[in-house]
Amino acid sequence: MDSGRVRPPALRWRELGAAERQQALRRPAQVDGAEIAEVVAALIEDVRMRGDVALRALTARFDGVVLDDLAVTEAEFSAAETAVSPALAAAIGDAAGRIEQFHAAGMIPPYAVETAPGVRCERVLRPIRRVGLYVPAGSAPLPSTALMLGIPARLAGCRDVVLCTPPRADGSVDPAVLVAAAHCGVRKVFKIGGAQAIAAMALGTDSVPACDKLFGPGNAFVTEAKRQVSRLEGGAGIDLPAGPSEVLVIADAGANPGFVAADLLSQAEHGPDSQVILISDDADLINRVAARIELQLADLPRADIARHALRAARMIQVENLDEAFEISNDYAPEHLILAVRDARAWLPRVQAAGSVFLGDWAPEALGDYCSGTNHVLPTSGAARFVGGLNVASFQLAITVQEVDQQGLRAIGPCAIELASAEGLDAHRLAVARRLDVA
Amino acid sequence: MDSGRVRPPALRWRELGAAERQQALRRPAQVDGAEIAEVVAALIEDVRMRGDVALRALTARFDGVVLDDLAVTEAEFSAAETAVSPALAAAIGDAAGRIEQFHAAGMIPPYAVETAPGVRCERVLRPIRRVGLYVPAGSAPLPSTALMLGIPARLAGCRDVVLCTPPRADGSVDPAVLVAAAHCGVRKVFKIGGAQAIAAMALGTDSVPACDKLFGPGNAFVTEAKRQVSRLEGGAGIDLPAGPSEVLVIADAGANPGFVAADLLSQAEHGPDSQVILISDDADLINRVAARIELQLADLPRADIARHALRAARMIQVENLDEAFEISNDYAPEHLILAVRDARAWLPRVQAAGSVFLGDWAPEALGDYCSGTNHVLPTSGAARFVGGLNVASFQLAITVQEVDQQGLRAIGPCAIELASAEGLDAHRLAVARRLDVA
Ligand SMILES: [Zn+2]
Ligand SMILES: [Zn+2]
Repeated sequence: MDSGRVRPPALRWRELGAAERQQALRRPAQVDGAEIAEVVAALIEDVRMRGDVALRALTARFDGVVLDDLAVTEAEFSAAETAVSPALAAAIGDAAGRIEQFHAAGMIPPYAVETAPGVRCERVLRPIRRVGLYVPAGSAPLPSTALMLGIPARLAGCRDVVLCTPPRADGSVDPAVLVAAAHCGVRKVFKIGGAQAIAAMALGTDSVPACDKLFGPGNAFVTEAKRQVSRLEGGAGIDLPAGPSEVLVIADAGANPGFVAADLLSQAEHGPDSQVILISDDADLINRVAARIELQLADLPRADIARHALRAARMIQVENLDEAFEISNDYAPEHLILAVRDARAWLPRVQAAGSVFLGDWAPEALGDYCSGTNHVLPTSGAARFVGGLNVASFQLAITVQEVDQQGLRAIGPCAIELASAEGLDAHRLAVARRLDVA
Repeated sequence: MDSGRVRPPALRWRELGAAERQQALRRPAQVDGAEIAEVVAALIEDVRMRGDVALRALTARFDGVVLDDLAVTEAEFSAAETAVSPALAAAIGDAAGRIEQFHAAGMIPPYAVETAPGVRCERVLRPIRRVGLYVPAGSAPLPSTALMLGIPARLAGCRDVVLCTPPRADGSVDPAVLVAAAHCGVRKVFKIGGAQAIAAMALGTDSVPACDKLFGPGNAFVTEAKRQVSRLEGGAGIDLPAGPSEVLVIADAGANPGFVAADLLSQAEHGPDSQVILISDDADLINRVAARIELQLADLPRADIARHALRAARMIQVENLDEAFEISNDYAPEHLILAVRDARAWLPRVQAAGSVFLGDWAPEALGDYCSGTNHVLPTSGAARFVGGLNVASFQLAITVQEVDQQGLRAIGPCAIELASAEGLDAHRLAVARRLDVA
């Protein structure tokens, strides 16, 4: 069993120099970046040139299945409804209800302000006209991701929603994903995975409509494809820079080591490149969590993936919780679990994170599925500058100014003064010519 | 005078084929993309390796001035206050007031929802910890841009705000820019321009603090630098993909040709690559606007730039206004002027645009300076999927879930069902282990 031990060394923060600290918080570099970029560029070009023909060939190659029709049919939607167990269907509906409740309550309202007599400034909201959702399958289907993308899209008012997900070896799509998609009113589902799905939704083919913005997580190829299509002339927008999933747990002496271990493992099982960090002011807690991880790994079917991820895990011992929050804010984790006494009192200390879990009874798994928050969150340190997916991600906020003659007289001279200072005479004249008439 | 004529041919939309229509709405490709990327990559590397030494060398090379101290001093701030005319100072204050009023009213509130008994989901807001603002100078200083970046940053609560702007030949910064910056509480101003300013704010040097997100317009080098630094490992976030400025005017037979001509010219003077489009259902209006452009050009100091931009201008005649809005929504202009009767009634037809100007008395210049809306807006078709700068651009929306034992009992089984469907056993167990105890 010794070969299976994955216990990472506990780092005593105070004993580390600046370089060691930086190293401890460093995310592993994404491998093969240049190679992936080249492969993805070729895939995108193939889809651009050959459209559906390319999609069928790539699906045969990567998913091992030859498809005549890339689109999921109504008959397949119906079959999915019966294929999913009542318990799973109920869970999908239950989770969807809470996700919808939380997202609906956070929608941005339109508003208007009269900034001067006769000058009315507004924000109006429009759904993005056509959005493309990507639901990966990877090692398992992800109906939860269909909900996390489809529900805010529907709340935003998007009427034209396309969803791509990889087909299974028998040419079908996982029924739970279809049930979740249908729950969100998404009926344009295509059996396409990977970078070719992103290319199809960005460029459009005979089967797949071209979309204005693309959403959803994926592996390194999907992420690179999103990046590349967003750089094309007139290219689609993309949601978040997606990297490997991350959790940082801040635990005090009173935390339950079994719970903390379970949370670290649930992060580790996402993939071999998942990021797992524990910070505690209690050396004993760290030791007990490490011991529990060993025990719990024995029960875990995906133990291999988890062991791989845990090899890069970091356990950091700090002098006090203040130091823990400093480290966490610098790292800016996707998921932050506060397994500390009176967790709410510490919330104001959180300056950068994707989603925060307060207390011992809030495993990160709840946020992945059904608390109501979105699980598409910033990774790779992007939580320093951007939040997770929400309804506004699927909307345009357009500003409007309505100005009458009185309004122009009120603020026109200000514009003239500033335009003059900036040497923009045509701007000055566009106001002045009207004021002469007004 | 004939050589100076810039009258673009009017296109009759109905007579164009699909390819011609696409061509008519096509934005010109950005020139020398690969060459710019190479130059910028070298500049960034130089700043990374040599820090302030590189910044001084690059400033000497590009701005023609040798600086000892890159930072603007308090004495320089004071001198700026007296150097700016009272009228200009008043205009800055006046514009700032309306910008603040409009932006403050649109701020996103925090909120909380109990999605199940014992499950409280929240959105909390945090200012981005350190933001970097770029204020270009180009052919003229842009105090208005300092306001458009600095005011939402202050409203967001950002305490650590860095601003870079190119120095003038005498080593000073334009006093109006300093007055505008001070008005927003921004005192960390550096005399650095171009791609090197972006590199400095993204990477940090001895003088310039490293920032979490970078904002502001700029030329092709600045834009490319923003793109490159955002791709670095742990790189800074950036605001919008910035391209050449654009206006699309929809005018009916009742529009004032002189006003429309003035608005098209004010867009054209921004730069030789500015995009200028007029759409009307009235052939006569198009002709009269074209004639007015010729006349007004004679008065214009920046006529050369405007002529250059106007050569690529497009004037499109449509059968009716419905068609005009279809075209506009496909093009998704940065600025959209509705010079039509009862402009407000047409607003619901706008599906994609950065900022909209309603009626004959709303020149685009008002939005650039002082109506209250932001002038940092999506270009290059990005208005299909993203809105302009606002307070939320400077904030993080962090989601939070607080769950007690009762809450876990309420929603835990749902998470278990979904985790099982997705084959994520450690997720299932993170909930189940707690439920055994609960
Ligand atoms: Zn998870
Ligand atoms: Zn302008």
